[in-house]
Amino acid sequence: MDIIDVFLHPKSVAVIGASKKFTKGGFRITTNLVTNNYKGKVYLVNPNADGKLYDLEFKKSILDIEGDVDIAIFYVPNRFIPDLLKDCIKKGVKGAIIEASGFEEVGDKGLELKKKVIEITQNFTKIRVVGPNCMGLSTIDGDSDSEEKEAFLTGFGVFSTFKRGNIGIISQSGMLNGGYLMHLMTQYPNLGFRYSCSVGNKTDLSEIEFLEYMIKDDTVNVIAIYLESFKDPRKFIELCKKAKTMPNKTILLLRGGITSQGQKATLSHTGSMAENARLINGIIKQSGSIQVNSFYELFQYARSFSMMYKTGKTFPKKGNVSFVAGSGGAGTITADLTMKYGLTLPVLEDQTYSVLVNVFPDWMPPNRFAFVDIWPAMEKAMMNNINPGDVSSQVYKALVSDPNIEGIFNMQFCSKQFKGMSNIKEIIKIAENSHKPFYFWLVGDAKEVQRISNQLGKHQIPNFPSLEEMVKNFSILVRESKNTSGV
Amino acid sequence: MDIIDVFLHPKSVAVIGASKKFTKGGFRITTNLVTNNYKGKVYLVNPNADGKLYDLEFKKSILDIEGDVDIAIFYVPNRFIPDLLKDCIKKGVKGAIIEASGFEEVGDKGLELKKKVIEITQNFTKIRVVGPNCMGLSTIDGDSDSEEKEAFLTGFGVFSTFKRGNIGIISQSGMLNGGYLMHLMTQYPNLGFRYSCSVGNKTDLSEIEFLEYMIKDDTVNVIAIYLESFKDPRKFIELCKKAKTMPNKTILLLRGGITSQGQKATLSHTGSMAENARLINGIIKQSGSIQVNSFYELFQYARSFSMMYKTGKTFPKKGNVSFVAGSGGAGTITADLTMKYGLTLPVLEDQTYSVLVNVFPDWMPPNRFAFVDIWPAMEKAMMNNINPGDVSSQVYKALVSDPNIEGIFNMQFCSKQFKGMSNIKEIIKIAENSHKPFYFWLVGDAKEVQRISNQLGKHQIPNFPSLEEMVKNFSILVRESKNTSGV
Repeated sequence: MDIIDVFLHPKSVAVIGASKKFTKGGFRITTNLVTNNYKGKVYLVNPNADGKLYDLEFKKSILDIEGDVDIAIFYVPNRFIPDLLKDCIKKGVKGAIIEASGFEEVGDKGLELKKKVIEITQNFTKIRVVGPNCMGLSTIDGDSDSEEKEAFLTGFGVFSTFKRGNIGIISQSGMLNGGYLMHLMTQYPNLGFRYSCSVGNKTDLSEIEFLEYMIKDDTVNVIAIYLESFKDPRKFIELCKKAKTMPNKTILLLRGGITSQGQKATLSHTGSMAENARLINGIIKQSGSIQVNSFYELFQYARSFSMMYKTGKTFPKKGNVSFVAGSGGAGTITADLTMKYGLTLPVLEDQTYSVLVNVFPDWMPPNRFAFVDIWPAMEKAMMNNINPGDVSSQVYKALVSDPNIEGIFNMQFCSKQFKGMSNIKEIIKIAENSHKPFYFWLVGDAKEVQRISNQLGKHQIPNFPSLEEMVKNFSILVRESKNTSGV
Repeated sequence: MDIIDVFLHPKSVAVIGASKKFTKGGFRITTNLVTNNYKGKVYLVNPNADGKLYDLEFKKSILDIEGDVDIAIFYVPNRFIPDLLKDCIKKGVKGAIIEASGFEEVGDKGLELKKKVIEITQNFTKIRVVGPNCMGLSTIDGDSDSEEKEAFLTGFGVFSTFKRGNIGIISQSGMLNGGYLMHLMTQYPNLGFRYSCSVGNKTDLSEIEFLEYMIKDDTVNVIAIYLESFKDPRKFIELCKKAKTMPNKTILLLRGGITSQGQKATLSHTGSMAENARLINGIIKQSGSIQVNSFYELFQYARSFSMMYKTGKTFPKKGNVSFVAGSGGAGTITADLTMKYGLTLPVLEDQTYSVLVNVFPDWMPPNRFAFVDIWPAMEKAMMNNINPGDVSSQVYKALVSDPNIEGIFNMQFCSKQFKGMSNIKEIIKIAENSHKPFYFWLVGDAKEVQRISNQLGKHQIPNFPSLEEMVKNFSILVRESKNTSGV
């Protein structure tokens, strides 16, 4: 059986360093497992603890446990690790997640410790290791707000809100299985994750094994990777190339330590050796993965792709897009941005144009190209006692039917005072019935923006905090351009 | 008296096209004036309305008003404008804000109307005009949540939340005095504005007169400009150069329509003629103003500068910055970003370093350069039953005292479960007592992030949604680098 499968779906785990003190990581890891309905068996190991926690008895040693243990999660100071590993091997534990730091990233002393670990595990033939210097692994099986609530979370930040989705994370920063993942889960409550794997110093298992697993795993569509070094560049390129040919996989890569300052920081973080910038660029280019510049961009793109796969929409091929806005200035800036990102606001088909001519006033005729400043049409409707919402529906329906248009940008003004004019529900319906992606930019009262953002999110329609983010995120779909139509 | 002063601080205004119907712009403009405590006199003009609105009587014509009228605000269809302007001139009205569209931006018919307006006003010698095709002007005198609440708001989006601040807006997009301004006011409740001027087609008054006024006006420090054309490039350059030499003025410029697609959109928006891209670049370069790429960036930068001026902090000269974080990955990416944006994480002074060595554990010594991954120091403190908050204060105090460090980046993990470890109040105090800017990146639970964001905002300390925004916004301070110390 695949060892990664054992790590991500273990039948039993032992928390080594479990604790009743709620300030301790061992307490938090246990809490994460128990309160989030991890379905496997949980054992607690701590030679200095007595009694029970969450009705689970403390054992002095892993050797005192009667049943089998798939995975041991270590939350103990680094100096205890060699002896505890010996016990695990004796017990027949298949894998260890070592969260402690203080290995090669701290110099000679840590290097010695690393050597000891390699020796004891007989170069990881006796037990497989994730870490050290990591934040553990996460598997999300069921949403936290549902009856199916279930997650295997081994970081020391306690999660209470999570959603299962189609994104898998592989990271050399623990933050992506800790505070930042928590941030994403609460900021975008409709964005779901399947796995998050903090690989740390990757002394044994690395991005390679997790990537290989996620490429095979049908529940993952988007693989978001943060690396400070490549364990096996040739294999990494090979795996990325394979994913590239698959209709349901996208790999996003953030590489940290690409500058001299970044490399200094990397060394103190995961002890990774600086790789030549040209080599890094070569690997990224050959792999065909999408390179991103920051954590923020990594998960904006991940969200965009996640929604495309979830809703089975058609990826744009040419980058022809329409923009419906209530502001000429927003239209001008967006038109500039589309050029910057290689998109086009195409000329409208005669049929589309005639629909617009019909709803626009004589004193402000529509454009021939796909930027629709809809405000004059709204005004005309109101003057004629027509529901402006109906007019906007007509416009949207005409645009999605235009064969030259592959997606629609929407500026939505969010305010209770103009609520009567908005028909966001109707637009959502049109978006859901279309195979073309709809991207939103929301402005107006912050509370209304949040409300409409949530409403869109529930239907897997993204909105962006700026016009530039909206345009950039669409352009990245054109670059990837998978053949998903009909999926 | 300066005509712009009359437009921005009028003693009396007439709303031409005032209406009792709440779907009408004329109703909303009146509501804006009355409910936001505009202190001047308000007159309502509408030949088809009877009775009163907000206890104000409707007049059939501006000529029926007994008192003087400084400014007439037009919210009527364009065809009525010539005759109404004649009345205004007869009445001795000093200025007209014309919000209607349908002038040169719609072609020949609109051009004729424009000619008529020029003829009637004798080339604007009889009355000065803002617009047409604009969203009016705003002056904010007192915060909406204070007893001093007072604002002169003439757009047709009704504001209920606003704060007086040191930012002035000059815009060829009405959105910046409408929905987007509302967005900013509610999204950043501590970010204040002084003026917002929507100049529309600028047939008479343009960016030039408003810019000249705001440069002279001591209540404005940051001038955020959005233009689709330059009315008088030579004068614009001259004014920007003047502002550049002043210790308390920063000009930010967003130029729309810089690509061929953008120019097509511009033409249909404000009817502006396309200017040669090389000419535009030349103007921007010569003016020395800071060019931005999107509305979002415009107001992120405006916020950064606004806070610098408000708090009288010292602008960084060299770009030497420190980063305090609880994540090595965030440190690596930030180190990469500092290089991208021309900043440096300098080597620490011996004194600073010795403070860090003292609080860090032996198994994880601190860096010699200014990236402080503070987590191991927190762990050591907890092991020794020391309050981790006290340790973080020590670290911050050492860093602000380091003469090579000009500002501090902070990653703050926001979660109730780690609340005991955070001493955000203490960090805010240190930041307030220092003349060096503190920039925050908040991660963690979205609600806690919002709470701490508000807390920081109240103290004029900015936080950013991404590491890249944080680094970019600091680098722009280095570029401007005013001599404000001691202001």
